[in-house]
Amino acid sequence: MGGLASPRAAETVPVPATPAVGGEDALTALVDLVGDDLQACNRAIVARMDSPVALIPQLAAHIVAAGGKRLRPLLTLASARLCGYPGAPGGARHIDLATCVEFIHTATLLHDDVVDESQLRRGLASANAIFGNKASVLVGDFLFARAFQLMVDDGSLAVLRILSRAAATIAEGEVLQLQTQNDLSTTEDQYLEVIQGKTAALFAAACEVGAVIANRPAREQEALAAFGMNLGIAFQLVDDALDYAANQATLGKTVGDDFREGKVTLPVLAAYQAGDEPERVFWRRAIEDGAQNEGDLDRALHLMEARGAIEATLARAHGFARAAREALSVFPDGPARRILADVADFTVSRVR
Amino acid sequence: MGGLASPRAAETVPVPATPAVGGEDALTALVDLVGDDLQACNRAIVARMDSPVALIPQLAAHIVAAGGKRLRPLLTLASARLCGYPGAPGGARHIDLATCVEFIHTATLLHDDVVDESQLRRGLASANAIFGNKASVLVGDFLFARAFQLMVDDGSLAVLRILSRAAATIAEGEVLQLQTQNDLSTTEDQYLEVIQGKTAALFAAACEVGAVIANRPAREQEALAAFGMNLGIAFQLVDDALDYAANQATLGKTVGDDFREGKVTLPVLAAYQAGDEPERVFWRRAIEDGAQNEGDLDRALHLMEARGAIEATLARAHGFARAAREALSVFPDGPARRILADVADFTVSRVR
Repeated sequence: MGGLASPRAAETVPVPATPAVGGEDALTALVDLVGDDLQACNRAIVARMDSPVALIPQLAAHIVAAGGKRLRPLLTLASARLCGYPGAPGGARHIDLATCVEFIHTATLLHDDVVDESQLRRGLASANAIFGNKASVLVGDFLFARAFQLMVDDGSLAVLRILSRAAATIAEGEVLQLQTQNDLSTTEDQYLEVIQGKTAALFAAACEVGAVIANRPAREQEALAAFGMNLGIAFQLVDDALDYAANQATLGKTVGDDFREGKVTLPVLAAYQAGDEPERVFWRRAIEDGAQNEGDLDRALHLMEARGAIEATLARAHGFARAAREALSVFPDGPARRILADVADFTVSRVR
Repeated sequence: MGGLASPRAAETVPVPATPAVGGEDALTALVDLVGDDLQACNRAIVARMDSPVALIPQLAAHIVAAGGKRLRPLLTLASARLCGYPGAPGGARHIDLATCVEFIHTATLLHDDVVDESQLRRGLASANAIFGNKASVLVGDFLFARAFQLMVDDGSLAVLRILSRAAATIAEGEVLQLQTQNDLSTTEDQYLEVIQGKTAALFAAACEVGAVIANRPAREQEALAAFGMNLGIAFQLVDDALDYAANQATLGKTVGDDFREGKVTLPVLAAYQAGDEPERVFWRRAIEDGAQNEGDLDRALHLMEARGAIEATLARAHGFARAAREALSVFPDGPARRILADVADFTVSRVR
């Protein structure tokens, strides 16, 4: 899986550490930056998921209707903008490839929900809960194949290389997560490898593609890949913190899912490693043996609070968000760069 | 989904209807024809499914060890040979692409078994029975992505177009099968669309790719696609007959699986449509309502016998096998053509 280092180039323009816009406003600014492109992308998503087999658009529409932030396609669109990709009438490749990125993401969501046996996704019933596991697996496969068809139509082997590699890395990350499940001897490095694969690889690819279609030099392609990779890691760290720190209404998913599944995320690792022996006995029973009783989630939350596990996780997230922002320093200052830098801050400002 | 018609060209060389070699010998002859290439392909399969995430090669090895006939990669290798693709030292693209074809096939097997909740595959415990559904879904995703990585390394957008389209068509066929499950109003055309998608599309692509890498004209590419498509339909028709007509030892899968799952295959449709009202009441209860009792499978087998449902299915299979053989008539006579024609006969000779 790819490296994390942000590029160090001879000439760099520092990216201000204190953003002009922060929090939720960063996402709004991102949407505003590429508004027309995002609408075109939303239309392309609906058009391209069509099939004579009615269940496919039905199930796919359920996911699309559930919405989500469209963060990954937004990253492709904004990266293309940052790199001066002309857009229509000069070209609409960024729209098609943002659509691919969203299809790959949606396919992994569908398969994740089957794998996790989730009942909720983005606050709504998950596709597998409504349509069944079978349909979710198969429609995921369809969207994945359709994404590659779109890339073939686009015609760039460089893009195909980036996204097929990302797809393989995502699967590797997910399998590694399965391997580390219920295993408290998982190291922080292994945990980072999991989230780098399952989440950050697609963020990195989504951004890198923007530079590739604009024919920017390798240095800028690598900078955007590093931006996306660090951003994705920060994003997943926060997500894993939110699984213990958010309430269901704001997060749109069931709090404690990770706990019940015995997922070994950083909040758990931090609390386990900082805990005394009675605490470790608790964690081993709940996470490794999966022998959970009423009140165990509350105890887990209490121990995390006592051991500063959420704070430790968020501190790591802030570090990666900072690295993401710094990776942008190879680009000249301007609205696109500023907004992308703010998105890194938004990512870690979702909690508290 | 693609058309079934075999190409009608100005000059064609008839393919003998009575093959020189038939039955199991055809498969042996096919393996002998491309022996070294098949060994190279088997090595590539093991090498390319490797990953630092140990569970991936472990689970993939389980499938590979289970063996299978390698029919689809054999078709790619033999099609390349038929088209005069030089092979090593002129090139090893046929090996890599045969590997892709097998990876796509293996990925669909892994996802099928999850979807079907099968306990047996090729006479051994299925991967999902040993490793769990989660791992099967994710390793399937990995193999699928890895197939695309291999295609990107190969560098042909034409090949990528053929196999990405096939992958989407496979998923469509599988979803359509899900839609028609438990539904006796399914038409024979809909059934054919299902098997064309879920099985024959990959046979067609596997063959077509052989002509593409040999830079043969469109007429020969289309002929091989038609050969593979008709062969694949014949193959699946026979498979669906075997689900009622074989014994477990020779088939390596549980007899009556399709019946228990309420799959509406041609043997069921034929028996249902030829049945009187009491028979139809039985079929509706067993297939549509899924209310199956002890002895129902035996009754189903008896009714199929009485109504000639297996014979009707095999007669259809023979028709498609004949169309497959005829599609080869655009090629000059020679060992590769003769053996591929015999494979079409082998496909329908697997029963009785």
